[in-house]
Amino acid sequence: MRQLTLELAADGKRPMYEQLCAYFTEEIRTGRLLAGEKLPSKRELCAHLGVSRSTVETAYATLVSEGYVRARPQSGYYVSDFVPYDAPALPPGAAETVPEPTPAPAGPDCSTAGVDVSLFPYTAWARLYREAVVSTPTLLQRGDRQGDAPLRGTLCAFLREYRGVRCRPEQIVVGAGMEYLSGLLVQLFPPDTVFGLEDPGYAAMDATIRSMGRTVRYLPMDAHGLRPDALEASGATVAYTTPSHQFPMGLTMPADRRSRLLQWAAAGPDRWLIEDDYDSEFRYGARPVPAMQGMDALGRTVYVGTFSRSLAPSIRLAWLVLPDALLRRYQALSGHSYSTVSRYEQAVMARFLDSGTYARYLRRLSALYRRRRAQLVRILSEIGGIRIQGSDGGLHFLIRSERLSEAELLSRAAAEGVVLRGLSAYCREAVPGSGTVVMGYGGLRDEDIPALAERLRRAWEN
Amino acid sequence: MRQLTLELAADGKRPMYEQLCAYFTEEIRTGRLLAGEKLPSKRELCAHLGVSRSTVETAYATLVSEGYVRARPQSGYYVSDFVPYDAPALPPGAAETVPEPTPAPAGPDCSTAGVDVSLFPYTAWARLYREAVVSTPTLLQRGDRQGDAPLRGTLCAFLREYRGVRCRPEQIVVGAGMEYLSGLLVQLFPPDTVFGLEDPGYAAMDATIRSMGRTVRYLPMDAHGLRPDALEASGATVAYTTPSHQFPMGLTMPADRRSRLLQWAAAGPDRWLIEDDYDSEFRYGARPVPAMQGMDALGRTVYVGTFSRSLAPSIRLAWLVLPDALLRRYQALSGHSYSTVSRYEQAVMARFLDSGTYARYLRRLSALYRRRRAQLVRILSEIGGIRIQGSDGGLHFLIRSERLSEAELLSRAAAEGVVLRGLSAYCREAVPGSGTVVMGYGGLRDEDIPALAERLRRAWEN
Repeated sequence: MRQLTLELAADGKRPMYEQLCAYFTEEIRTGRLLAGEKLPSKRELCAHLGVSRSTVETAYATLVSEGYVRARPQSGYYVSDFVPYDAPALPPGAAETVPEPTPAPAGPDCSTAGVDVSLFPYTAWARLYREAVVSTPTLLQRGDRQGDAPLRGTLCAFLREYRGVRCRPEQIVVGAGMEYLSGLLVQLFPPDTVFGLEDPGYAAMDATIRSMGRTVRYLPMDAHGLRPDALEASGATVAYTTPSHQFPMGLTMPADRRSRLLQWAAAGPDRWLIEDDYDSEFRYGARPVPAMQGMDALGRTVYVGTFSRSLAPSIRLAWLVLPDALLRRYQALSGHSYSTVSRYEQAVMARFLDSGTYARYLRRLSALYRRRRAQLVRILSEIGGIRIQGSDGGLHFLIRSERLSEAELLSRAAAEGVVLRGLSAYCREAVPGSGTVVMGYGGLRDEDIPALAERLRRAWEN
Repeated sequence: MRQLTLELAADGKRPMYEQLCAYFTEEIRTGRLLAGEKLPSKRELCAHLGVSRSTVETAYATLVSEGYVRARPQSGYYVSDFVPYDAPALPPGAAETVPEPTPAPAGPDCSTAGVDVSLFPYTAWARLYREAVVSTPTLLQRGDRQGDAPLRGTLCAFLREYRGVRCRPEQIVVGAGMEYLSGLLVQLFPPDTVFGLEDPGYAAMDATIRSMGRTVRYLPMDAHGLRPDALEASGATVAYTTPSHQFPMGLTMPADRRSRLLQWAAAGPDRWLIEDDYDSEFRYGARPVPAMQGMDALGRTVYVGTFSRSLAPSIRLAWLVLPDALLRRYQALSGHSYSTVSRYEQAVMARFLDSGTYARYLRRLSALYRRRRAQLVRILSEIGGIRIQGSDGGLHFLIRSERLSEAELLSRAAAEGVVLRGLSAYCREAVPGSGTVVMGYGGLRDEDIPALAERLRRAWEN
């Protein structure tokens, strides 16, 4: 019998037979015991280790049932046809070559992704969550795949009142963020569908569509937004647009242009508009422009929105409003899925909407952003040769220079410690006419604005 | 001037100019005012409505800026080139043709999806959630796209200790359920990848892969699970398998078979195993079989798991453990995404794991399922001609009949009010050898089991 290096611990923490199993398993896995090799007989093992016959029998039976060992009648126990997985050593440092996510730049956060959560009603949120957990045990079970009825009902009423969206709760699908839902939406169109995207536009949507192997055309815009003639010429049958506050140009599509897009959709049998109502919660002009979806009586517009911007990025709750024809496709496709959103947080959000807490929060938040934007626009406008554009809504605007190129704007700002993105970063085939950078202010702190503006003045004035 | 049917409400609830805008907008949208038609002059409108000049001026300026109306110098205001979206009436009842989700059958829940949540630690969960909300405001901001570090750290330690998974926290990606993560996983392989699936197998994975346009081969099994020779012959380069408790056959893949699958993966340059550790939390045999991933020193195994079964279906938290090579692909692809799981619930789950609450809960839950399974197996085994198979773990087993066909088993059970699924519902190309049905018991209530067994005895004994 080969030498056993095994020592059994009799402290009762782990059954003896399990320790025996673990020992042999490891010997086999690492190739110290080879296929076909004979194990000690039960009698030998008992004597050697001083354990009971039943311990050894249980261990051997377990090894047989797990496939490490085979029993040959009248002969004994042999290692299975088990090839030890003799791995070549990984190249040195291989484990460390995984790149870490880029850290956020220090300095003021001028990204378009920033959101202010200083006014978030923490205690109300936590209280509603607790109420949902304690009062409704059934919320632990599988919910409706489109989202629970109370949330869809209140969301439907909210969208009708605040955005002029015309829909029934059955048309709503809630999901864990826009990325997830846009992946789901793309699947509702045939694989050979050509998608038309605004250029410059929202890169995440572009990436999602292309990662699913679909074809994309980049569509030029004019001062009113997406050009219907370019859309028609592109051969696209699904057009993605951000009419409320175009990303990143910041313009609001006028009603006659929306009407033209709806006419385009009506002119073909399988033409669709995806209206991303991005940042529509925040309007600083005369009145909020209602959603294009509300003008669409033919049901060719998918309306999409999210609470990531208005509530908090980490609350993963976005929605689609599907026209009936696409709703039927969704329901045919989604047989096995169910909602990606925690039902507890769905219940909290339903109460948030229903009680008016959300609408009140939005008003306070909107006032905060309005003040911040006014301050920022006022100071920046004083810089020579600078124009502000697209600041009527949302959480970002464009800064155009008559004198400096985009590269100059960016490098001079960076030299003052301000990291900005240029408009060209959002362009695919479009070419920005003049030096233009994108300024997001959702993530700025009010107290940092004078110093930020001063840095930009230093950077760009001479 | 055409007749205005407008009545302004002077109760101060809504500014006068907004009411005027809303009136004209609706007239234009519905086609009662047509493109090119002239609006009343400002003077006329003031006189007719008895409102101030500035009210009318604000309203007209808003209509112009929104694109409904154009101003012609020295002439007046005209309706834009706006084609009213004159929708044909929807066919009667069209809104009602959307099919509702199939309601759950009445009677005992014998589905494989059922989960018992009666022992769920509601108050601990709610308390931890509240603590996360109140103590950590930064949790509202964007988190790590792979999931927050505390959760990945504790999950990594848990998987190492309980499942023998060998990984670093950086390899873990948490997401809102297995459906979402499997969609993400499929994208890490080239579009022409052929996926091999166990047959019979898990239909949701099959549907996800095919919905993304990928090719699927169905692989036969023997008494030890997936057959390596069939896998080799299929041309598949990614094999999806459930070694811990094969779904739906219920068998545990022995170690030598796992070793053969790992050899298969090592024999080609881009071959991968997806190990779905479905239902591994619940083992009623000698000891839990460690994950195949822990045997794989070459890094060709993706390990996937979820808390949907062990904790609750509505807690949307599943994970992938990616080998380094796939992790790099994921990080290259996921530039724009961030985690689909609520950061608050991530924080709760991290504390749940870290404090041992989850492990204790799992022990109590496992004891509950073990008792239920034993009771069910004992009573069912007394029915003549019935054999139970695959009941060593998980939350379901197979019932085989030597005498009755699957159709007979199902229809007789249904006549007694028991809805079951036949094995053939899970088969793609495989043909079940004998009459076999699948019995899930996660969703049963203990008190219903004697009556359920009695119904099945009546159904199948004669």
